[in-house]
Amino acid sequence: MRYHEKVEVHGHLMDTGVLARVLDDVLDYGGDYRVDHIDLGRSHDDESHAVITVGAETSRRLIRILMRIQVHGVNKVDAGTARCEPADRDGVFPPDFYSTTNLETVVHLDGQWVPVEHPEMDCGLVVSHGRVRTVPVTDVRAGDQIVCGVDGVKVVLPVTDHSSRVHESDTFGALPSSTQPQAVLVRAIARQIREVKAEGAQVLWVAGQTVVSTGATSALVALVEAGYVDVLFTGNALATLDIEAALYGSPLGVGPLRGGRVQRGSEQHIRAINAIRREGSIRAAVESGLLTEGIMHAMVKANKTFVLAGSVRDDGPLPDVHTDVVEAQRAMRGALRGVGYALMVASAQHSVATGNILPASIPVACVDVSPATVHALTERTSAHAVGVVADTGLFLEELATELVPDYRPARPGSGAIL
Amino acid sequence: MRYHEKVEVHGHLMDTGVLARVLDDVLDYGGDYRVDHIDLGRSHDDESHAVITVGAETSRRLIRILMRIQVHGVNKVDAGTARCEPADRDGVFPPDFYSTTNLETVVHLDGQWVPVEHPEMDCGLVVSHGRVRTVPVTDVRAGDQIVCGVDGVKVVLPVTDHSSRVHESDTFGALPSSTQPQAVLVRAIARQIREVKAEGAQVLWVAGQTVVSTGATSALVALVEAGYVDVLFTGNALATLDIEAALYGSPLGVGPLRGGRVQRGSEQHIRAINAIRREGSIRAAVESGLLTEGIMHAMVKANKTFVLAGSVRDDGPLPDVHTDVVEAQRAMRGALRGVGYALMVASAQHSVATGNILPASIPVACVDVSPATVHALTERTSAHAVGVVADTGLFLEELATELVPDYRPARPGSGAIL
Amino acid sequence: MRYHEKVEVHGHLMDTGVLARVLDDVLDYGGDYRVDHIDLGRSHDDESHAVITVGAETSRRLIRILMRIQVHGVNKVDAGTARCEPADRDGVFPPDFYSTTNLETVVHLDGQWVPVEHPEMDCGLVVSHGRVRTVPVTDVRAGDQIVCGVDGVKVVLPVTDHSSRVHESDTFGALPSSTQPQAVLVRAIARQIREVKAEGAQVLWVAGQTVVSTGATSALVALVEAGYVDVLFTGNALATLDIEAALYGSPLGVGPLRGGRVQRGSEQHIRAINAIRREGSIRAAVESGLLTEGIMHAMVKANKTFVLAGSVRDDGPLPDVHTDVVEAQRAMRGALRGVGYALMVASAQHSVATGNILPASIPVACVDVSPATVHALTERTSAHAVGVVADTGLFLEELATELVPDYRPARPGSGAIL
Amino acid sequence: MRYHEKVEVHGHLMDTGVLARVLDDVLDYGGDYRVDHIDLGRSHDDESHAVITVGAETSRRLIRILMRIQVHGVNKVDAGTARCEPADRDGVFPPDFYSTTNLETVVHLDGQWVPVEHPEMDCGLVVSHGRVRTVPVTDVRAGDQIVCGVDGVKVVLPVTDHSSRVHESDTFGALPSSTQPQAVLVRAIARQIREVKAEGAQVLWVAGQTVVSTGATSALVALVEAGYVDVLFTGNALATLDIEAALYGSPLGVGPLRGGRVQRGSEQHIRAINAIRREGSIRAAVESGLLTEGIMHAMVKANKTFVLAGSVRDDGPLPDVHTDVVEAQRAMRGALRGVGYALMVASAQHSVATGNILPASIPVACVDVSPATVHALTERTSAHAVGVVADTGLFLEELATELVPDYRPARPGSGAIL
Repeated sequence: MRYHEKVEVHGHLMDTGVLARVLDDVLDYGGDYRVDHIDLGRSHDDESHAVITVGAETSRRLIRILMRIQVHGVNKVDAGTARCEPADRDGVFPPDFYSTTNLETVVHLDGQWVPVEHPEMDCGLVVSHGRVRTVPVTDVRAGDQIVCGVDGVKVVLPVTDHSSRVHESDTFGALPSSTQPQAVLVRAIARQIREVKAEGAQVLWVAGQTVVSTGATSALVALVEAGYVDVLFTGNALATLDIEAALYGSPLGVGPLRGGRVQRGSEQHIRAINAIRREGSIRAAVESGLLTEGIMHAMVKANKTFVLAGSVRDDGPLPDVHTDVVEAQRAMRGALRGVGYALMVASAQHSVATGNILPASIPVACVDVSPATVHALTERTSAHAVGVVADTGLFLEELATELVPDYRPARPGSGAIL
Repeated sequence: MRYHEKVEVHGHLMDTGVLARVLDDVLDYGGDYRVDHIDLGRSHDDESHAVITVGAETSRRLIRILMRIQVHGVNKVDAGTARCEPADRDGVFPPDFYSTTNLETVVHLDGQWVPVEHPEMDCGLVVSHGRVRTVPVTDVRAGDQIVCGVDGVKVVLPVTDHSSRVHESDTFGALPSSTQPQAVLVRAIARQIREVKAEGAQVLWVAGQTVVSTGATSALVALVEAGYVDVLFTGNALATLDIEAALYGSPLGVGPLRGGRVQRGSEQHIRAINAIRREGSIRAAVESGLLTEGIMHAMVKANKTFVLAGSVRDDGPLPDVHTDVVEAQRAMRGALRGVGYALMVASAQHSVATGNILPASIPVACVDVSPATVHALTERTSAHAVGVVADTGLFLEELATELVPDYRPARPGSGAIL
Repeated sequence: MRYHEKVEVHGHLMDTGVLARVLDDVLDYGGDYRVDHIDLGRSHDDESHAVITVGAETSRRLIRILMRIQVHGVNKVDAGTARCEPADRDGVFPPDFYSTTNLETVVHLDGQWVPVEHPEMDCGLVVSHGRVRTVPVTDVRAGDQIVCGVDGVKVVLPVTDHSSRVHESDTFGALPSSTQPQAVLVRAIARQIREVKAEGAQVLWVAGQTVVSTGATSALVALVEAGYVDVLFTGNALATLDIEAALYGSPLGVGPLRGGRVQRGSEQHIRAINAIRREGSIRAAVESGLLTEGIMHAMVKANKTFVLAGSVRDDGPLPDVHTDVVEAQRAMRGALRGVGYALMVASAQHSVATGNILPASIPVACVDVSPATVHALTERTSAHAVGVVADTGLFLEELATELVPDYRPARPGSGAIL
Repeated sequence: MRYHEKVEVHGHLMDTGVLARVLDDVLDYGGDYRVDHIDLGRSHDDESHAVITVGAETSRRLIRILMRIQVHGVNKVDAGTARCEPADRDGVFPPDFYSTTNLETVVHLDGQWVPVEHPEMDCGLVVSHGRVRTVPVTDVRAGDQIVCGVDGVKVVLPVTDHSSRVHESDTFGALPSSTQPQAVLVRAIARQIREVKAEGAQVLWVAGQTVVSTGATSALVALVEAGYVDVLFTGNALATLDIEAALYGSPLGVGPLRGGRVQRGSEQHIRAINAIRREGSIRAAVESGLLTEGIMHAMVKANKTFVLAGSVRDDGPLPDVHTDVVEAQRAMRGALRGVGYALMVASAQHSVATGNILPASIPVACVDVSPATVHALTERTSAHAVGVVADTGLFLEELATELVPDYRPARPGSGAIL
């Protein structure tokens, strides 16, 4: 290998499998490595430290490898100083732009290490007036000074505490599965949410329409009213199903119990959307007295933020939906300020979208019936991710029971259901 | 078609799709049909009645079709009298033996309609001293008088009440899925169990090892102690996992939370089995003071019946396991007397085995995380089957909360889990 | 019930379970029914005919029921004449607009039955100069004459031929599952595609990114080059993964074999997107010589139509992506002219979106590894839907082998893979 | 920690994550560790070597930890000499028996290291006349000399070659999934099978009933006839479904295409079983001319070995079924001599049972539609396991096309299927 660079990494390298991933990635990208030094610490609590020389046949490939392994917290030993180049047109980065991770990042500019504002993965870094911020490719403008190459950029691995251990051990073979002790995990998530709220941070929910179809509307409404839902990211489907139930009623024992049949063929669905379009917005429908219950009603009444992102699958859609997905992403970014915890429930699409823009430092809990979805989300998003394979309905009812003192689940009348 | 027979069926033919299934089966078996008469009733509550002529090219095929469609409650209009032939050797039926359904069945003998004792599917009918009982092929003995052909046998479709409607409507396209209102279904099941117990009938549980690995041990123990588990069908896996936890401890936050990793590689597993083998039986281990907690301990203490059926996957196994599966089936049949309700939780293998021997008249609730498993079980087993796609852990905790007044789920200490 | 209407339905009512669904829907919507007349035909090939009186407590509810059951092909016996009202503002229908099915529909105007152009579900009907066309709610303009109520609108159930029987029988309990004879189904789909092409119609593909990650790129490219892919609906993910592999290479045995790890963390992903954004479009990248292989390259070279619909999950996205989902829906509608067959492979999102806008008369084949996805798609979309639960990679290789005479799958070098 | 022991491990510790698993297990079992020495090698091809001191509060716990981590190939630095104790009764080990792994193992007896015959996990070690063999708990007899404690037992990690890398990298987060390049994996498996046969070793198949229901009977028959199936482990279900089709016919386009509906309710199923019971065995039925086609017929004609293991779910069962599962395990062990490759297709139950008795040195390929099943099987069984998430039908057709030169899949007649 003709080109080499010495890199280093600190942290719980053994427990977390990080080192093995780094070495795998070097080989996957066509490079090679030599372990120069490794100090695992002697006891379990000690941090490890490794120095590795990475090699490649071309300089360009070497730079690509170095950028790649930064997602694992590996930095050049000799970081150097950042190089910037101007974008030559709107919406396009320079060819060798530095592509970000979602880790805390610092950039070496004029002899100073400057922290990057709002870390987000797969972005570029714009330098302006001595500050550095992430910018997605859609939002770069001609003339923006963009960090290029890998010199002068360092990332910081989050401190692994006990909380991350649950997740990381999962990645060594024990998948998230439906054989977890879900009830214990629900209570752990409840405790985390209480702690985050006690610290004054906000709780972000990302939820899919299954929340409504599993009959968890009353649980989620109770959580909204109790102040545990500060921001909601979802789409047209949840909001429409919720509003349809509020306008036309699908009492327990009728609509949902029949397996969601009412919404198929969807005459009622599109009629609910049309009714809200006539009002102009969901808030307007609440204020006019048309919409008097349900999740969206509760969010409006509690003055909480929601972002409805469009999908090509959408019927209608509701007037509040951001039909442009890049605009939706911007709206979601804008709603992240102050968020200290993200709870993703039964929505692969919106959860992945949220994971794309979340910094790694925000703890995430992912709840889905699909082990594959839970695994994909916990692996991607956060250094502090907990995955729970669970039903939406039972999960939300348990969570509401934990967090809302006087929560009582709705009960069907006798004879009505079975 | 050269051979014909007029058949008839009563019941809610439209609501339940039964008629369509009958006609499909006739075609699948190479026959043809002509609808002679149909009376759907005029309003929703009326019963329907249909008379159909079924035809086939050979007499043998026609008889096969007639046996086949009896599973849907279709009988010959002119039933005739049953014909018997002796079995010519042990363990083998005569070639044209009548193969049973699990419906209530009556046999025309000497001018009288005699009810079949303990209906069970895929058996033969043995006539002895004017009585008729089902016999599995393994248990037939040379000389037994076996009903042959389809003459003189009638089945009775269960009265469809509101309860079966949930299920049957599912079969029209709305699959059991994870988007059901699970919490509502849990409460409905709790109500059914209370009603069955109030009538003096017994509750059969069929459960898989997931009960233990999802941390639901304390919930199931509470249900046993409160008298809601009269009979338990399971296997070596649940019992061993339960006993392993009782002997070596896998407190919350250690064993199960780590994703069940402790039992992999299973040194501890086989050691627990060896310890019980040394005692001679699970009951002996309880009496000697070795086994002091867990599900199996609770069953022994409450003097309840359990049947552990062997599997080729078994480690060990425990001394109580019926390693011969035909013996296991016999033991299960023997434990069915008095059972008025069957609850199947997270065990496809034992649930299918139970469904094979249950009469259609016993209501069944199936709970599993897999929609395909729930669908397969509810379709096969019972005229009164309810399927719930749900996590074992959350389901059992909800059920215990409903049924056991002072049940409180175990709580992890702070800091221990995440 | 105070309000009544006599309705009728023709077709294979028994085989298909349609009648049971109609009656269920009437009850679900709070109405009641009386079967006035039913003629099932006497033999299997005869059509059935039923006349039913439907009742409800309010006139409005009765109209809702009548609209609802039209999705099953049920029309009023006395159809009456259509009533139109002008839309009072852009993007909103009148409150009692007629909501369409995707069946062939005729509207009674001025004594004539006028066929609806391009049937599409969940739309309104705009009448203009004696013609009637569907319009989605987003595209209605103030002043448009919109059909309101259910009078004067009839739908026509597709003639059920042998092909639909496979599907309809599935809905009676035998789910699409991984235990189908997939190879047989692949050959049946190949035969249908050849027939459709022979009739001069176009074949629409809806595909997800799994096509690339399962190594089926060469199979799909062969199918494009052989003329079996006229239109492609997909998203940013497939196109980016395909282009990333073309630009940076993920030869067999490296990228995909390692389980798709290369695209995680996605530095290379975003770099590929940036490179195409720099060119301005995928076509421009082909013409400039930057993009020289892969699926998108083959589509451009063959001058075929593709529509890339945006998703809030998208990285980048590529410049060809319709970031506005309503615009994407319009582009998809525009590309449907001439399409006579739709093949949906491994993309729930785009497949549902396509199903939303397809007329019921176009045959659909859905291929996915998830039985639930296959079931949902085949039930919704078409009167002639076939579902196959199958791997994308093996399915496409089999299909290419069937349709492209000289297709040879790529072979890895020895030693490279395992 | 009061009790300590120095242990060591050789191999590709980084690539494979072994070291992290060892340290996790020590903590899970309540111990602690100190890394005394680690040599990772400098380049990718070098082997690593680690020396670790493991501690625990009690001597018993320390021994348990040492046994546990032997599954990862970790041995005491100072092995000592094995200690034996006689079993005091049949079917029970001494309390502190050494519980085996499935790795190659040597035992220090009288100054010599003696290799263990037929390594198998979760067994005891019996010493007799200077030889050591594994014995399952069911087969131990009073007086047998059993190795106790962990002294004097060493295991040998298999040499990790390129083949194992695919699997091990999977365990770092990239799950086996339906997004693999299945066609490539099929060809790799074909190559392995040819190599194994060329070396004179036998190929073991473990298969489930899905082989028949997916229409892969002709593919598997072709593979049997071509000599690629030396041993078959399966159960009553596959054999019965296969024989039922042979006796009563389920031609393409009828039985399987209708989604396997014919076997439901199973009158024909039990009749096929009865017919074979009348003959006495499957071989007798072939010889009498009753059974003339299908998989079981091909196995008998080719004089190959099959073991049918009983399950409590079984109907009948067939006379060849080992109804006692411990006998079935013994029969399977007996059939393993000469086996050099194991292919597990669509049968979680029999595959787990086989994995339980296979030595780690035999390469295993697992093919199943369920990612969770594939993961569980590849993780448990072998040091050389490859997992493929694939349809049974398409997989077997591809494999037959690869291995059997003149194999042509059965083709349906026109019009018959769709």
